Amino acid sequence: MGNKELLEKDFKNLLSELNSYKEMLALAQWDMRTKIPKKGVEQRSEVVGFLAEKAHQLETSEKMKYFIDMLKEDTENEIIKKAVLECEENYIRNSKIPLDEYKNYVMLQSKSEAVWQEAREKANFALFQPYLERLVEYNQRFATYWGYEDHIYDALLHNFEPGITTETLDRVFPDLRQAISSLLTKINESSLKPDSSILQSHFPKTDQEEFSKEILNRMGYDFSSGRLDETIHPFAISLNLNDVRITTRYDESDFRTAIFGTIHEGGHALYEQNISEKLASTPLATGTSMGIHESQSLFWENFIGRSKAFWSSHYELFKKFAPTSFQQVPLNEFYQAINEVKASFIRIEADELTYPLHIMIRYELEKLLINGDIKVSDLPNLWNEKMQDYLGIKPPTDREGVLQDIHWAGGDFGYFPSYALGYMYAAQFNHILSREVNVKEAISTGNLGSIKHWLTQNIHQYGKMKKPLQLIEDVTQEKLNPVYLINYLTQKYTDIYRL
Amino acid sequence: MGNKELLEKDFKNLLSELNSYKEMLALAQWDMRTKIPKKGVEQRSEVVGFLAEKAHQLETSEKMKYFIDMLKEDTENEIIKKAVLECEENYIRNSKIPLDEYKNYVMLQSKSEAVWQEAREKANFALFQPYLERLVEYNQRFATYWGYEDHIYDALLHNFEPGITTETLDRVFPDLRQAISSLLTKINESSLKPDSSILQSHFPKTDQEEFSKEILNRMGYDFSSGRLDETIHPFAISLNLNDVRITTRYDESDFRTAIFGTIHEGGHALYEQNISEKLASTPLATGTSMGIHESQSLFWENFIGRSKAFWSSHYELFKKFAPTSFQQVPLNEFYQAINEVKASFIRIEADELTYPLHIMIRYELEKLLINGDIKVSDLPNLWNEKMQDYLGIKPPTDREGVLQDIHWAGGDFGYFPSYALGYMYAAQFNHILSREVNVKEAISTGNLGSIKHWLTQNIHQYGKMKKPLQLIEDVTQEKLNPVYLINYLTQKYTDIYRL
Repeated sequence: MGNKELLEKDFKNLLSELNSYKEMLALAQWDMRTKIPKKGVEQRSEVVGFLAEKAHQLETSEKMKYFIDMLKEDTENEIIKKAVLECEENYIRNSKIPLDEYKNYVMLQSKSEAVWQEAREKANFALFQPYLERLVEYNQRFATYWGYEDHIYDALLHNFEPGITTETLDRVFPDLRQAISSLLTKINESSLKPDSSILQSHFPKTDQEEFSKEILNRMGYDFSSGRLDETIHPFAISLNLNDVRITTRYDESDFRTAIFGTIHEGGHALYEQNISEKLASTPLATGTSMGIHESQSLFWENFIGRSKAFWSSHYELFKKFAPTSFQQVPLNEFYQAINEVKASFIRIEADELTYPLHIMIRYELEKLLINGDIKVSDLPNLWNEKMQDYLGIKPPTDREGVLQDIHWAGGDFGYFPSYALGYMYAAQFNHILSREVNVKEAISTGNLGSIKHWLTQNIHQYGKMKKPLQLIEDVTQEKLNPVYLINYLTQKYTDIYRL
Repeated sequence: MGNKELLEKDFKNLLSELNSYKEMLALAQWDMRTKIPKKGVEQRSEVVGFLAEKAHQLETSEKMKYFIDMLKEDTENEIIKKAVLECEENYIRNSKIPLDEYKNYVMLQSKSEAVWQEAREKANFALFQPYLERLVEYNQRFATYWGYEDHIYDALLHNFEPGITTETLDRVFPDLRQAISSLLTKINESSLKPDSSILQSHFPKTDQEEFSKEILNRMGYDFSSGRLDETIHPFAISLNLNDVRITTRYDESDFRTAIFGTIHEGGHALYEQNISEKLASTPLATGTSMGIHESQSLFWENFIGRSKAFWSSHYELFKKFAPTSFQQVPLNEFYQAINEVKASFIRIEADELTYPLHIMIRYELEKLLINGDIKVSDLPNLWNEKMQDYLGIKPPTDREGVLQDIHWAGGDFGYFPSYALGYMYAAQFNHILSREVNVKEAISTGNLGSIKHWLTQNIHQYGKMKKPLQLIEDVTQEKLNPVYLINYLTQKYTDIYRL
């Protein structure tokens, strides 16, 4: 073995060590959310803290720096080259934060989540305010350490969606907002009013679970590389490429929670399960960004799962698992009901059309906050004003308003835009997919595999080998363009509401 | 803080690091046995290997040696003192084995388990023989590294039951064997023949699970610090004092597997759940030996779970969960049936009386093997001869014979005697318990808590603060004495079989 081969081998060993910590962190997290007994949590939190520190130490170690310097310009192996770049980015970003500050921040995060939980339960923003103020300060400081060109918020966006800036968002969001608003006005004027009460009949958990599993199988989710469990907050998590687990929530009085939740998380899981094995045990073996990840989950949930084609060919199957009351519900009424548009206080309960408005509200507030244009104490009022402005409703308390999401309590500023970006990406991918695959036929013949295959070929297999913007351009031959989502929504709701 | 306090604090931090690795190893193992998807196993094995190496490195590190040297003679803190001694023992034992040999041995173990599995399935001892030969060689060499006074096998016994030697076993086993043989002869001559076919009616899994959970609750197993899952091979595992999980196996045609299995594992779990919180995050926060652990599981399974007092007061409860056929089975016939004596090829299916004979066979063979008096290739024949001699039956193939247990494939020589020791310990503890607590009354009033309380006060709380022999003497005021088990078995089976 030559010197370079030896070096590459040693580098791979270091990556594999890092990966071991990350697999254990993922397992610990999965267990804490699904199986851990109540009293085991305290000690486990310490263990997780220890593992996270170990991983962080490796990522910023002298050893890591050495491999980056030695291999950066001097490897012909494309995977190693990209892995080195990924490690370098992490190294630079992590090294810019003094270790003491990092540790204090991690402790603040974990405390803040508990305080947020209490504040939300009591609908008492004042409890959470001092913590949120410190979290904002940290994020402002980190953003300064990391650096940015135009807007301080760009430094935070970069953590979740590299390449996307406030400039991009300020370009695409207004068009999207206007299109949605105009659709909303027409929908409100429409005489057609879907009746979603027909969906609310008692649907036993075990039957929902069986139907969910059947759909996951048809999507191509591999149960020998994953499993489905039950949690209050559904999620997907990858332990390694051959162990990608999802969870869902069952509401026996409303099956939509479980079915669409399962399809959504299944979309995330398909992404992780179908990354090329060649990337295993490297930092490239995961989704390339939050936005691209969300494009996969939203694609399956909305573009497939809430489509007419899907229910035309799966409604009979559904009725085999569903309560008998559905026998009396015609397909068309069912389809309209699951696509009812109705302004909601809660983001995760929002319909397909109004969902992006929730994201825009958060984005605008975050940007102002991080830029120092508004204070944390201004948030509750501004939130309510924006809800009124965008959605025409005002939350009764901060529980249904500014306190509803956990993200800020975890210090995740710059995360929310990924949800709307993912939605636009999904529409843009869907546009190309529909040209290359006969989607309707694939769905109606139950051959969802051909859709999964296209996604794997064009998106999944690459993991982090391609950055999100490169991926979008490679697949769609253009940059992020909101027009595809606008067209999709216009077409879908014009049809449903006969606009 | 003085120098000594600082030193103790740093030592505790090291122990807590070590504990983090061990908690993660336990979680990984639990997950691999209960939840992991099939294809996730390969990568996980690497992660487990990595974590085990990390823990081993810490246990044999210069840093560990430093704390041992500095604190051994110079601490007034009783817990730290014992923790140092425990670490020193591990340090010395682990350091005596060259790292290369250790690694090769770990790899051999993991390979051997897979080969053993195949060999057992195919009832083909020859497949397994070369691996077993190497495992025996390693164990002989390790025993030499570790050292011993009289018998090489003592060095291996020490790993599982410190203080117990071949001399002890050779003193107690013959008496026990003779007592059992004499009881067996009488039982075979007795006209009373329990009818265990009355137990075999279809008992749905969910009902068995509910009854099992009810009994666990009554035993005092804390579900907020644990959980019950299903596996083919039941086990108990402690992640930390507040997270002690158990599993059981459900056989819908024979409830005994699940019920007695659950009580058995519940006994192990009660031990771990009730260790003093003061020992948390030290190597003392676990059961003191395999034998003492087995004394707790066997105590609950046999002395409580198969007792007349237990079923007199729980049979009505049982019938609420059981198939209706049990309504026709009188308590006495039920009690006789669950205590039927019948020679069995398989150790884990053996009845209470013949169980120790299975252990003696393995002990005698292991001793000869490690001492070099017999060869691995002699095992199948010798096994069958001893089965004939001790139990009067001969296994049809090696699958039901020498290949039945996994222990040797994992290199665990010296482990089996713990099972019989645990049984004798249990009887000896039970003798004192019965003097200090009105056990029959406690059982009949459903107050198993007073039994758990006694076990916690006398045994559980100490964790590894007391070595097994010290514990036995402190609780029973004498050394290991097989007479209590002999008396218990004699009394029980004289009553059941009207001898």
